[in-house]
Amino acid sequence: MSGRPEVVATYLVETYLPLEQAAATIAGEQSTGTFVAVARETAELRDRFAARVVAIEELPPTGTADLPGTIRPEGAQRRSARIRIAFGLENFGPSLPNLLAAVAGNLFEIRQVAGIRLLDLELPDAFAARYPGPRYGVTGTRQVLDRPDGVLLGTIVKPSIGLPVEELRVVVRELAEAGIDFVKDDELMGNPPHSPLADRVAVVTEELDRVAQRTGRRPMYAFNITDDLDRMAANHDLVRDAGGTCVMVCVNLVGHTGLAWLRERCELPIHGHRAMTGVYTRAPQLGIDFVAWSKLARLAGADHLHTNGFSNKFYETDDEVLRSIEAVRRPLLGGYETLPVLSSGQWAGLAPETYRRTATTDLLVLAGGGIHGHPDGAGAGVAAMRAAWDCAVSGGELEKTAREVPALARALETFGAARG
Amino acid sequence: MSGRPEVVATYLVETYLPLEQAAATIAGEQSTGTFVAVARETAELRDRFAARVVAIEELPPTGTADLPGTIRPEGAQRRSARIRIAFGLENFGPSLPNLLAAVAGNLFEIRQVAGIRLLDLELPDAFAARYPGPRYGVTGTRQVLDRPDGVLLGTIVKPSIGLPVEELRVVVRELAEAGIDFVKDDELMGNPPHSPLADRVAVVTEELDRVAQRTGRRPMYAFNITDDLDRMAANHDLVRDAGGTCVMVCVNLVGHTGLAWLRERCELPIHGHRAMTGVYTRAPQLGIDFVAWSKLARLAGADHLHTNGFSNKFYETDDEVLRSIEAVRRPLLGGYETLPVLSSGQWAGLAPETYRRTATTDLLVLAGGGIHGHPDGAGAGVAAMRAAWDCAVSGGELEKTAREVPALARALETFGAARG
Repeated sequence: MSGRPEVVATYLVETYLPLEQAAATIAGEQSTGTFVAVARETAELRDRFAARVVAIEELPPTGTADLPGTIRPEGAQRRSARIRIAFGLENFGPSLPNLLAAVAGNLFEIRQVAGIRLLDLELPDAFAARYPGPRYGVTGTRQVLDRPDGVLLGTIVKPSIGLPVEELRVVVRELAEAGIDFVKDDELMGNPPHSPLADRVAVVTEELDRVAQRTGRRPMYAFNITDDLDRMAANHDLVRDAGGTCVMVCVNLVGHTGLAWLRERCELPIHGHRAMTGVYTRAPQLGIDFVAWSKLARLAGADHLHTNGFSNKFYETDDEVLRSIEAVRRPLLGGYETLPVLSSGQWAGLAPETYRRTATTDLLVLAGGGIHGHPDGAGAGVAAMRAAWDCAVSGGELEKTAREVPALARALETFGAARG
Repeated sequence: MSGRPEVVATYLVETYLPLEQAAATIAGEQSTGTFVAVARETAELRDRFAARVVAIEELPPTGTADLPGTIRPEGAQRRSARIRIAFGLENFGPSLPNLLAAVAGNLFEIRQVAGIRLLDLELPDAFAARYPGPRYGVTGTRQVLDRPDGVLLGTIVKPSIGLPVEELRVVVRELAEAGIDFVKDDELMGNPPHSPLADRVAVVTEELDRVAQRTGRRPMYAFNITDDLDRMAANHDLVRDAGGTCVMVCVNLVGHTGLAWLRERCELPIHGHRAMTGVYTRAPQLGIDFVAWSKLARLAGADHLHTNGFSNKFYETDDEVLRSIEAVRRPLLGGYETLPVLSSGQWAGLAPETYRRTATTDLLVLAGGGIHGHPDGAGAGVAAMRAAWDCAVSGGELEKTAREVPALARALETFGAARG
């Protein structure tokens, strides 16, 4: 079997069965199903198509709750393991949805496990041949923005929903004049009756053109084109035809396959929003880890991908956020360059810690309240963020820089106190 | 606000905060986000776009584990509630992906909840105008099969994967001659290099044509067309052009949006497989309940939908299975007729209990081992299933019927013992 192209899936498994038995059940359920005697299932067929248990690494107990329906033989101990299983590529070919049928499929329903999470996927080169992946990535995004280095700074239009387009115009103008790199729609703002995408595109691109003429800098605005697929493609065309330079897609809401479909038709950078990722990641004993999830999104073509940010308002710890950022930055099949997007609770004061932990400026940092909520306005919010990042990268001290940059001093004063 | 078209989402919420506060947080996070003070968010805007807490019904404690990151104020008690929240349709319009941004979105990540599940969705009529839903449903499927009444009986081709097409021909012939209504590909069998869909379609349709000429009956064969979307559409065309009468789609693997996209182009009944649904349903403190999930799949166009079966080999209890079957059968927006598909561990002996609990024959019951594993062959397996269902519907006793139908006697003998 060596030499055949394979996908290797890594799982966190909790079970009351012997680890070898649990691993064999997973491999069987998701390939030849050797536990049911079936006519015509020859030894040769099994040799060719059976998934293979590559490694079982026992881990300390996790203490998570058993999934409903778990088989618990009397007196059996619960054990945890990282289990790696190899599936022949021949079983499904280089197709994301058909890959998922094998590595996920019915797996989350089997009673032999008290817990199961798909942690990671190693994919053979055939996937690179099928999926072109990000068209722009980090390099392309920097080129469009004419920002060859330094962290990229952005924000989300607030309020999330319901802002009249003429007020949107004012918000965008203020942000663009402040030298921001990136502005995005909220994920709640798609193409609703009260604020049609066409109206937003007209107003925003007109305003960005004007600012660009005056300042020479044109921020990227990620219009949320998420919708039913034919409409999403039409939304993309609308943005492109108006001279827009970015589209946002909620990856889970159109699916990885929907994203890959868009990629085939898309001429702009795709800003991948992670809304609903929590349904896969948050239950400790079930789901799909961000590492595996993000690989699929990158293959499907996400140029930017939300990783959450340090000190965020959601459930993830800073260590988990760092792991997600690193996962997105790690080369995949020799490429698939995607820009990590840090969001939620971000502000100037987090720059040193973020830079210390990530050791890169290949990040798009989005601050909502940290920019819109700056007491001297969004312009000061952007200036404070930029100064804080320059300081962090040059190894300076924020307090010292703040003495020279009033906007930063005000940010530290305002948000530093509020956030402890 | 009364009279505006709304979506009402029902959640199971676990929290250490006052229930009113948790409910308000959910409503705020997923609409106007009133917990962050933002310029331009006027009272008028909030009135128009804020989600509204409709009802909070406290429930007995569930005893599930807290989600990671849960906020637990000192001394606070954990409480459970069914919470209903109304979102103005104006916030997102009748779009499945944009609906999900609101009713699910970031919700699974908020720290204010120790548990959160989306249980149900009530949708306004605008969704009926946008989504045509199942083209065939129960009635259309019965018409195609020329089976105006009685339960519909089917099976899955086994082995799941790797069967050479000439052996597939033999299996299909045997099943069709035995009078089966329905045969399907395994969800692991898409369009892999070792068994191209085109080859399977050619062989299976040829064989079904021959049997139909001899017997006058042509079973439906659900070819698994799941793939990247453009390929899925091409797969559909291939099946249609060859005279095939059904396609199978793994709903989660192409997404509800992918399914809705296919529906626009699809001329055949869509057999909706639920592979990977467990990732949404199995963690008791997180996810999306089958009731909500199945409504989205029906809107998106699933003519048949897997509900799992009684005494199945997976984690769900019989009560949960019954709830899923009833959910699929309940009219949605006055229509969206979808056929429940019972699968996993099904065999003749389960007919009386299944009929007693569901009180309907508008079911497609799939038996894998229960047909292929019959000691006298698949033909006897089908005969046993048919006799058992006739007996169940007429209120007879299986043991009595078995005295007249040797195939049923053998099934009871073989599977009854094995399954206790």
